[in-house]
Amino acid sequence: MREAGGREDRDGGAGREQDRLARAVLTWLAEPTDPQLCALLRSCSPASIVAGLSAGTLPAGAPPSRAAHLPGPGIPGLDRAFRRWSARLGDAPTEAALDAWRRAGTELLCPGDPGWPGQLDVLGDARPWALWVRGSADLRFACLRSVSIVGTRAATPYGTHVCTEMAAALAERGWAVVSGGAFGIDGCAHSSVIAAEGVTIAVLPSGLDEPYPRSHERLFQAIGAHGALVSEHPPGRRPTRPGFLVRNRLIAALSRGTVLVEAAVRSGALNTARHARDQGRPLMAVPGPVTAESSAGCHLAIREWGAECVTGARDVVARLSFGAGDLAGLPPGPVLARDSLDAESRSVLEAVPARVGWGPARIAVVAGVDFDRVICCLGQLASGGFVERCERGWRLRSPG
Amino acid sequence: MREAGGREDRDGGAGREQDRLARAVLTWLAEPTDPQLCALLRSCSPASIVAGLSAGTLPAGAPPSRAAHLPGPGIPGLDRAFRRWSARLGDAPTEAALDAWRRAGTELLCPGDPGWPGQLDVLGDARPWALWVRGSADLRFACLRSVSIVGTRAATPYGTHVCTEMAAALAERGWAVVSGGAFGIDGCAHSSVIAAEGVTIAVLPSGLDEPYPRSHERLFQAIGAHGALVSEHPPGRRPTRPGFLVRNRLIAALSRGTVLVEAAVRSGALNTARHARDQGRPLMAVPGPVTAESSAGCHLAIREWGAECVTGARDVVARLSFGAGDLAGLPPGPVLARDSLDAESRSVLEAVPARVGWGPARIAVVAGVDFDRVICCLGQLASGGFVERCERGWRLRSPG
Repeated sequence: MREAGGREDRDGGAGREQDRLARAVLTWLAEPTDPQLCALLRSCSPASIVAGLSAGTLPAGAPPSRAAHLPGPGIPGLDRAFRRWSARLGDAPTEAALDAWRRAGTELLCPGDPGWPGQLDVLGDARPWALWVRGSADLRFACLRSVSIVGTRAATPYGTHVCTEMAAALAERGWAVVSGGAFGIDGCAHSSVIAAEGVTIAVLPSGLDEPYPRSHERLFQAIGAHGALVSEHPPGRRPTRPGFLVRNRLIAALSRGTVLVEAAVRSGALNTARHARDQGRPLMAVPGPVTAESSAGCHLAIREWGAECVTGARDVVARLSFGAGDLAGLPPGPVLARDSLDAESRSVLEAVPARVGWGPARIAVVAGVDFDRVICCLGQLASGGFVERCERGWRLRSPG
Repeated sequence: MREAGGREDRDGGAGREQDRLARAVLTWLAEPTDPQLCALLRSCSPASIVAGLSAGTLPAGAPPSRAAHLPGPGIPGLDRAFRRWSARLGDAPTEAALDAWRRAGTELLCPGDPGWPGQLDVLGDARPWALWVRGSADLRFACLRSVSIVGTRAATPYGTHVCTEMAAALAERGWAVVSGGAFGIDGCAHSSVIAAEGVTIAVLPSGLDEPYPRSHERLFQAIGAHGALVSEHPPGRRPTRPGFLVRNRLIAALSRGTVLVEAAVRSGALNTARHARDQGRPLMAVPGPVTAESSAGCHLAIREWGAECVTGARDVVARLSFGAGDLAGLPPGPVLARDSLDAESRSVLEAVPARVGWGPARIAVVAGVDFDRVICCLGQLASGGFVERCERGWRLRSPG
């Protein structure tokens, strides 16, 4: 389905495939947000950069390199970066490797692909070269109505309780929940969404075949089945400390807003919160006892960074709801045209009743679609604002 | 001391005394914020209104009365209000009664008196006709550097803990704490300040000889000794339900800012918080667990009313500190000129050392002032920004 967009008809399929492979190679050669590569991509295409690296020369049209301490045109440190990238070129993936990974369930998603989340444009030059994705959800679709829930690894019973309630309630209202797959609040948010049969997305700081933390292996499998695992890092890449920080900007950028559920003032989750603020995305925080260090980061975000004080899913939805004050200017109701749905999702949508709710099994029979796929499609349709859960199952979402 | 201002020299002492008695009578005749009296006082002096009531006629210069449903000039319902006030005139206090109350420790404070808190001007027409005051503190002085702390009568251990810590820390930094003397957070705030030897002010919904609640009698005695009891209601007046609500505007108006420590969404403390907001005074609220109903009013104030999320005395002081962004435009350091201090306070101030702290007993010996008066003067000097507590006692406050 992702190959069915319009762009390769204009660019030619071969050019498109070349661009995809070059982007895959770039994820291999350079760490996300590598400043020289970000600068170089303003003037040169990924394919020309990779071709230049193979030929041992800067691509045509590249600005000159210059020393960081000298003024003038050009990219500071480009020469050294070029040597750094070249050193990794020998191990870079081939078209065959991409095919093998795709068959094993790990797809490469590039800017311009139908499934590419347009929300990432907020990152500007620091946008990922490409994303590695594994799972059942359509990433763009899910992200259109999504919330990031982040917080401390050392979650207290209070934080766990609030997180579980909030994530489940958001899932039940058709919101996808984005988080980082970590211990504590992250894992709690993912698990709660899965239990509520919603859509959840984990953005990992490592290659998708090296998911971190290892002991969350079963959770990651469930996330893949109920949503998607996403990474900027190619398969085989282990997590690094700087990798966590650049990963956090993606957690914030993929969703419509970020909720800090529980965090001490030195928690890494505050880094994600700062990214949301710097991206101009709504930042929210759940208050807690002022006597608890574990909520001090939330209070800091409210006091210093303009985070909205939210007490539950209701407040979050009110803040992010499609409406007059909505930053993205999205209309109420479905956020995508029906025509943009794939055939399976359209069949499922046709089968969903208007008023009384039906369970997924009945919808599967009427739609003629596998039960597992129905569950997945319903999550996507809910994210897109087409359907909603009610007491007895699923029904069409009433307009407004 | 209060008789030593400049105004009676211009107006003549007799006119001033007549005005004071008239204002005392008005507190007797009309409930605070009585709309017809507020309107009438725009055109007529208190003395002319009381004289008119005695003569059975509206004073010269009074606007006409008109029916509330008819347009035109005049005061709606003034005739009926005039009859209502007249009915109470027979029992109104005399000059002798005022003298007797003063000897018993209850003073009348009127606009223009040296001790009148200028902060009350924020109330405009709804400013009290006069205040009945009992206690050791100079009300204007104390209010210049004061915080209102309010909250639920049904305080939890969490709210009590936070309130105790905050009130004590504010007292130790030389801030006076204003509250309503009620059960729960109010009483806790007063008690904590008293334990910290600070200055605290209780604004009562009843006459000062009928303090409410009755079981706080010992607390009220301690408040009188460490600060002041204040009421708009004359001696003998029992509390009424509307009286609580109009009282709350005074709690907000007397201080530089209001902190909501713990309150459910239907708590009366939210009424005080709304007054602070409507008066344009800084409103602050302490968050709590979102799972606790008892903090839901605080979260409401933060979310809906722009209350600042504060986690302790430090945040409160930062919000209210004299500085560039200060609404009142007061300078750092002392908020009053030394010349405005009474002789006793000046003697005490002379005796306070610059760096090392001295205890009140040593200061009392050097200043030649009674120990009890020294304690009281030190609280006032701290409120005025002249002195501060340190580990070993009291010392001069360093500028800036």
